[in-house]
Amino acid sequence: MTIGIVGAGQLGRMLALAGYPLGLDFLFLDRSADVPAGALAPVLVGALDDRAQLRRLARRSDVLSFDWENVPVPALRAATRGLRKRIAPPLRALAAGQDRLAEKRLFMRLGLPTTRHVAVDSRAALARACAHIGLPGVLKTRRLGYDGRGQAVIRDRAGIDAAWQALGGVPLLYEELVDFDYEVSALGVRGRDGAEAHYPLTRNWHSGGILRVSLAPWRAPALERQARRGMRALLRELDYVGVLAIEYFVRRGRLIANEFAPRVHNSGHWTIEGATTSQFENHVRAISGLPLGSPAALGHAAMLNLIGTLPPRLAMLGEPGLHLHDYGKAPRPGRKLGHLTLVAPTARERDRRVRAVLRHLRLPYAAHRRGR
Amino acid sequence: MTIGIVGAGQLGRMLALAGYPLGLDFLFLDRSADVPAGALAPVLVGALDDRAQLRRLARRSDVLSFDWENVPVPALRAATRGLRKRIAPPLRALAAGQDRLAEKRLFMRLGLPTTRHVAVDSRAALARACAHIGLPGVLKTRRLGYDGRGQAVIRDRAGIDAAWQALGGVPLLYEELVDFDYEVSALGVRGRDGAEAHYPLTRNWHSGGILRVSLAPWRAPALERQARRGMRALLRELDYVGVLAIEYFVRRGRLIANEFAPRVHNSGHWTIEGATTSQFENHVRAISGLPLGSPAALGHAAMLNLIGTLPPRLAMLGEPGLHLHDYGKAPRPGRKLGHLTLVAPTARERDRRVRAVLRHLRLPYAAHRRGR
Repeated sequence: MTIGIVGAGQLGRMLALAGYPLGLDFLFLDRSADVPAGALAPVLVGALDDRAQLRRLARRSDVLSFDWENVPVPALRAATRGLRKRIAPPLRALAAGQDRLAEKRLFMRLGLPTTRHVAVDSRAALARACAHIGLPGVLKTRRLGYDGRGQAVIRDRAGIDAAWQALGGVPLLYEELVDFDYEVSALGVRGRDGAEAHYPLTRNWHSGGILRVSLAPWRAPALERQARRGMRALLRELDYVGVLAIEYFVRRGRLIANEFAPRVHNSGHWTIEGATTSQFENHVRAISGLPLGSPAALGHAAMLNLIGTLPPRLAMLGEPGLHLHDYGKAPRPGRKLGHLTLVAPTARERDRRVRAVLRHLRLPYAAHRRGR
Repeated sequence: MTIGIVGAGQLGRMLALAGYPLGLDFLFLDRSADVPAGALAPVLVGALDDRAQLRRLARRSDVLSFDWENVPVPALRAATRGLRKRIAPPLRALAAGQDRLAEKRLFMRLGLPTTRHVAVDSRAALARACAHIGLPGVLKTRRLGYDGRGQAVIRDRAGIDAAWQALGGVPLLYEELVDFDYEVSALGVRGRDGAEAHYPLTRNWHSGGILRVSLAPWRAPALERQARRGMRALLRELDYVGVLAIEYFVRRGRLIANEFAPRVHNSGHWTIEGATTSQFENHVRAISGLPLGSPAALGHAAMLNLIGTLPPRLAMLGEPGLHLHDYGKAPRPGRKLGHLTLVAPTARERDRRVRAVLRHLRLPYAAHRRGR
C-alpha cells in the first residue's frame, strides 16, 4: 500500500520513518526534491496546488494525506475528482483548520471555550473590533498563519494603524490577548472504524510564536477530562481519520481553545520515544485502515526543539539517553531543524535532566520555562 | 555524512531507519534495487564483489559498512585501495567471521570456550575426525553457512557418507554436537574511540537452524559476566568498531561460543523498542565516529521472527503493544519476512503476552520454547 503525502517536510519524513516498518510505501509531492522526506522516499516535484502533479500523486497512491495544513483544498478536490481516492484527514477538517474564523465557530458550536474574536475586513472594522473586544488584542490573518507569522499584537489605540499597515488587505480576525497561565495541547487519533485513542496532555512553552519545549504527560486531571471531551466532539463532528492536535491556553484552571491542526503536531514529537505508539505511526495506521496502537506514555518525556542552528552533534549524542531527530534541513534563523527527546522514570528526574541538557548544549530555553 | 552499505537487506533497512534521525544519509550496493533497503535509500545495482560498483559506493560514501557477513574481503580491499575510506567493522573481523576455523581459533586464543572441532578436507579426514571428536557431530562448510545452511548432522558411522556427499569438495569443519541446555547471545558495540557498550544477555530459540524467538534481558549474572569478558576480549583483539554479536550454547551453567557475527544481529532486534538505544542506532553511531548511546533495557522484551509467511496485518496490529517490523520482502518458505516485538514491565507479564500473541496469530513457536 502506498501513502501519498502532499508536503515532504519533517512531518512527512517522520511519517515515512514510522510507516516503513508497517510495510507501507510512501510518495510525496513538494516544491523541490531537496526536502526532509526526500532522502528516504520518492518526491514528485511541483507546487502544492499543481493539479497535474496532485493527480499523479493520487493515481499512484492508495490513500492521500498531507503534512501541511495549508494545502489548497480546491486543488486537492479537483485533482482527485473521479479517482475515488480516500483523503485522510478529511477535506472538511483541512478547510476548517485553514480559516481562523471557521475554526473558532466550530469550537463554539461544539462547546469548546475559545477566545473572544471579531472578523475584520477594514480599518474601520478593526477600530470597532478593538473597542468591542478591548485592548490589548491580537490581529491575525484568517489564513496562512503559522509559527507566529501573520499576527500583530495591538497594545493601545496608537498601535491600530501599524497593525493594519502590516496585515490589512486580506481577511482578518481580531481577538482578545489571553493573559494565560500556561499552554497545553491535546493529541488524539481516530481510525476509519471510529475507534479513538487519546494521548496524555502535553504542556508547551513557546517563544517568538515557535514551540520550544514540550513536557508530557502533564498531570492535570480536570484539564485532561475537559480536553478529552473537546477532542471527542471535534473528531466525531469532522468524521475525522488520523491524528488531530488542539492547542489550548490555560487560564485559572480552564482550557481556552486556541487552534487545531488536522495533522501530526510538533507538540506530539515526544511520542516517538515516550509513548507505546508514536503519533506518526498512529496517523499512518489510521489513514491506512489499520487498528490504532496504544497511546500510553512510557515514562516522563521532554521534547526540545532545535531552532535556527543545531548544537554540535557530538555534544548532543554525548548526553546519555538523549534522542536526536535531525530533519536534514539547512540552518536558517527561526527554522525548525530538529528536536531532542528524553524519557525519564519520574517527572522530577526528567526535569533535572532537561536542565542539565539545556545547560550543556547552551540552548537558550531556560527563560521560556516560565511562560510565553 | 553518507554511510555506504554493502548489502541492502532488512539489516541495512533498519540501519537506515535508525540513521536518518541522526542526520545521516545512506547508499547501498546490492544485486537488485528491489531489496528491503531499496524503498528508503538509493541502491547501486551489482554483485557484492563487483569491484567497479564497490569502488563507486566507496567514493560516494564517507564510511563503508556491510549488512551481510559474507561480503568478499579481497573485493572490498581491492575496491577501496588508495581511497583512504574507513571500513567498519574492520576487514579483519569480517575475514575471521567468514571462516569457521579462523573463528574458532580466535575464540580459543582469547580464552572463550568453544566446541571441540577438526578441519576436514577429505572423506578419510572426516572418518578420522568422527573417531577423534566422536559421534554424533556436525559437519559444516568453513565458509558461507548461515541459518542452518551448509551443515549436516552425523549421528552414526553410516551417516558419514551422506554428509560427505552433501557437503564434500569445499573446506569443512567437523565439530561436536553440543547437547546444550539452551542458547544465548551477547551483543556489544565499540566506538572509534574505544568506548564500549554491552547489551543485556538475550535468550534465543532456533528451529531448523533459524532464529524464532528471543527474550531479553535474560537474567543469568554468572553467564553475563562470562559473556562480557568474551565480548571485551574480541572487541579489543579485533580493534573493532560497530556492533558485534556472539552466539553461545549454555551447557551446565557454562557458555560455549558457537559463532560471532561482525554486524547487527537478528537476536538484537528487540533493542529497537526494548533498549534506550537500538543496536542499529549504536552501529551507525559507532561507524560514524559518534558517541555510543545507552544499551540499557527499557523493560522485558520479546522478539518473534516472522518466517515464510506474514500473519494478517490487521491481526498483528490489533494486538495491544505489539510492534511490527515488515521488511517488505515477498513471502517464501524459510525466508525472514519481518519480526514482532513487545516490551512488558515484568518478565512474567511479557511471557503471558507472548503466549497470547503466539496463540492469536497462530504462530507455530510454542514447541520451540522448550529448546532446539
